Amino acid sequence: MKKYTTISDISNLSETIMQAISLKNNPFLYSELGKHKTLVMLFFNASLRTRLSTEKAARNLGMEVMILNVNDAWQLEFEDGTVMNTNTSEHIKEAAQVISQYADVIAVRAFPTLKDKKKDESEYVLNSFVKYASVPVINMESAMSHPLQALADAITISELSTKRKPKVVLSWAPHPKALPQAVPNSFVEMMQLLEVDFCITHPKDYELNPEITKHSQINYNQEEALKDADFVYVKNWSSYKEYGQILSQDNNWRMTKAKLGNAKFMHCLPVRRNVVVEDAVLDSDKSIVMQQANNRTYAAQVVLMQLVEDLNK
Amino acid sequence: MKKYTTISDISNLSETIMQAISLKNNPFLYSELGKHKTLVMLFFNASLRTRLSTEKAARNLGMEVMILNVNDAWQLEFEDGTVMNTNTSEHIKEAAQVISQYADVIAVRAFPTLKDKKKDESEYVLNSFVKYASVPVINMESAMSHPLQALADAITISELSTKRKPKVVLSWAPHPKALPQAVPNSFVEMMQLLEVDFCITHPKDYELNPEITKHSQINYNQEEALKDADFVYVKNWSSYKEYGQILSQDNNWRMTKAKLGNAKFMHCLPVRRNVVVEDAVLDSDKSIVMQQANNRTYAAQVVLMQLVEDLNK
Amino acid sequence: MKKYTTISDISNLSETIMQAISLKNNPFLYSELGKHKTLVMLFFNASLRTRLSTEKAARNLGMEVMILNVNDAWQLEFEDGTVMNTNTSEHIKEAAQVISQYADVIAVRAFPTLKDKKKDESEYVLNSFVKYASVPVINMESAMSHPLQALADAITISELSTKRKPKVVLSWAPHPKALPQAVPNSFVEMMQLLEVDFCITHPKDYELNPEITKHSQINYNQEEALKDADFVYVKNWSSYKEYGQILSQDNNWRMTKAKLGNAKFMHCLPVRRNVVVEDAVLDSDKSIVMQQANNRTYAAQVVLMQLVEDLNK
Repeated sequence: MKKYTTISDISNLSETIMQAISLKNNPFLYSELGKHKTLVMLFFNASLRTRLSTEKAARNLGMEVMILNVNDAWQLEFEDGTVMNTNTSEHIKEAAQVISQYADVIAVRAFPTLKDKKKDESEYVLNSFVKYASVPVINMESAMSHPLQALADAITISELSTKRKPKVVLSWAPHPKALPQAVPNSFVEMMQLLEVDFCITHPKDYELNPEITKHSQINYNQEEALKDADFVYVKNWSSYKEYGQILSQDNNWRMTKAKLGNAKFMHCLPVRRNVVVEDAVLDSDKSIVMQQANNRTYAAQVVLMQLVEDLNK
Repeated sequence: MKKYTTISDISNLSETIMQAISLKNNPFLYSELGKHKTLVMLFFNASLRTRLSTEKAARNLGMEVMILNVNDAWQLEFEDGTVMNTNTSEHIKEAAQVISQYADVIAVRAFPTLKDKKKDESEYVLNSFVKYASVPVINMESAMSHPLQALADAITISELSTKRKPKVVLSWAPHPKALPQAVPNSFVEMMQLLEVDFCITHPKDYELNPEITKHSQINYNQEEALKDADFVYVKNWSSYKEYGQILSQDNNWRMTKAKLGNAKFMHCLPVRRNVVVEDAVLDSDKSIVMQQANNRTYAAQVVLMQLVEDLNK
Repeated sequence: MKKYTTISDISNLSETIMQAISLKNNPFLYSELGKHKTLVMLFFNASLRTRLSTEKAARNLGMEVMILNVNDAWQLEFEDGTVMNTNTSEHIKEAAQVISQYADVIAVRAFPTLKDKKKDESEYVLNSFVKYASVPVINMESAMSHPLQALADAITISELSTKRKPKVVLSWAPHPKALPQAVPNSFVEMMQLLEVDFCITHPKDYELNPEITKHSQINYNQEEALKDADFVYVKNWSSYKEYGQILSQDNNWRMTKAKLGNAKFMHCLPVRRNVVVEDAVLDSDKSIVMQQANNRTYAAQVVLMQLVEDLNK
């Protein structure tokens, strides 16, 4: 593996999932692999799970970790050719090259504006690091994707599925704030790679980018979609079409114990209780959100392991 | 030891103090004990001594340390059954369980509001972590107690006392800001466990929670109280009765060299010079505030050692 | 080495440069030297390169690193004898002594006010740490100097010079914000110690402190100054004379490919592209800013190595 900015950077998914599960069983087996290797984690946005699980994963491999909240430093310039006489103090060209000299791997978290679709889709923050850094880059959630989360989700489904081809449903939920499409995008892409019967359900006009959903089935009727589901991934996102807008806060889309039936409940967290999903679901044994969160460590660890193995070649 | 949220979690105080002093003499003797164990430190409030000494203590034991300023992430919800459609993004149930999966020990600092006595006394932040976390929790100063400080204070008195039963006085001091009762509460509780002649002095209406002070002697006359003292612990706190109020800023309660006499001066720091205590005291050899601060490391280290030993069982 | 607050703390400069280059070739050769030694890094101001490179340097030596953004704690008092009844919560006397008990080396970054020349020149933050700390102090950029940067610059010139006595020019550049004189001050002092033909060029009234520039040649004509230069260090600073003022934003002082000729371009970074220097310079092979930034690690590492060797004596 040369970088991990999108799930398509995984060359062998089923093997990677197997490796992750094996790391989970023996997290310190490769605790010498990362010796004298440094992960620099750069945060343009808030983080709890991603920060702690990725740091933990690196330390499990014996890596050094250095963390920088970029906003505590100064504003970076991403445009080419700008006369930098206003707010930005350093160009990404310099920042990415300099940090590469202190890091063996750089991990970046940078959310979308949800205002400027074209800019967000350009993934200018993440891609600028990929372009200018001389070391592998990991995406810790970018404007349009969250591949570490999707890998953790795939590990979780692999661990807990009792069928050859389980039915997995991605079900939109209401939320008071406009949220990115990063998590559902990467989840959709991941489901397209697994042997699952996959379907997406959301209100009209909440279609995700069709270049991502491709042939995946979309059903505007949640009840129909949820029928016989084995795994239900609940998540809010703002509209892609009317970019970044909240078009509905319809509580009928909230996940309930009744609707869930015998399916397992998934969510990437943080989750707003009794808005996105009722307490009765989260507090039941149908909820596997803790397994998902736990697998974040092993998703990050398997990615770091593959990146470091490649560096050591 | 299963947790350290209150000094009553110490099963054998004199042995624990002895162990701490022995760690101080040989801080790296157990530097393999914490290998592959992770301390996650969560700060809801500012910290200097607590942060550095606790991190240092963990590293002395070979532990990994991950630090999160919770306010850099998002606001947590502590109420049960809430419809989370306003400011809080994640429920403590999820947060505490998730962090437990990345941590072997969780340390939490969460100050009181000083507005809502009932809420503060419920210790809802600390106790929610204890309730929902699946790993041991350490109190790095909560709404109502600061047991790491009290343990460091006990170590300091044990080291420096030249008498079988020294006289220890807790003396209130003025301060421009309303401060919590956490430090005096834990100090009182600790003195009740040590073989000392203990007395508290403060202006009327500054009584601490009587369920904490219990049988401890209270004297409204500072001069009388200080007579023949061996150790004088000076500290401001806001009123417990008229909760969180500043009832007095009377400079006559400030500690002076003259009042202190031959006693040793103690304070948890940070201390406002010439408000709480005059320079002449802090700059004299009567002041043992540096020993107290130094012992913060060994108080934390002995607690972590006992917690990790219990985990390793 | 007992401290590193100014480049005059280096006892043998050419040997130190040689050691740094040798560390660069083998960064982990002394990875046991710093075992059980802790570097505490204190930031009063923002940092990217300094923070990451100094942390990296310490870890290369096997040291533990603890980082505190001082502003996340509380405001420190630096005046003697103050009645601390307003904004400051802790006196530097206590803070520096306490932190010394948790640290083997303390590194401090504290910028000038650029308002109060006398206060800035007193270096009250840095010097208070030197005065009250009981462990060696490293300057990570103070009000008036940046010796880690100057050492990295000296290493870079030593590595890349092809002449016995290269011509080095420090050339002022325009900038929209008032910047400190710390970097040019330390660069001037360093050039006075190296065997170089050194000259400074800037608009009138931008003279640096004459006690620092001493006998160094000053030329108000940039074109003349740059003639036959081997290394051109470009940097903005605000006026020393009319302290902290921006007296000129004259774009004619911007560095261009044409002016630079065959010289190598140096800058400490962050640099504002097309304000301080045009893209064509930074993007050319004449630019050695990346080597400078990389050498920050080895400048810090050689300093830490000398300090720790002294501690181990």
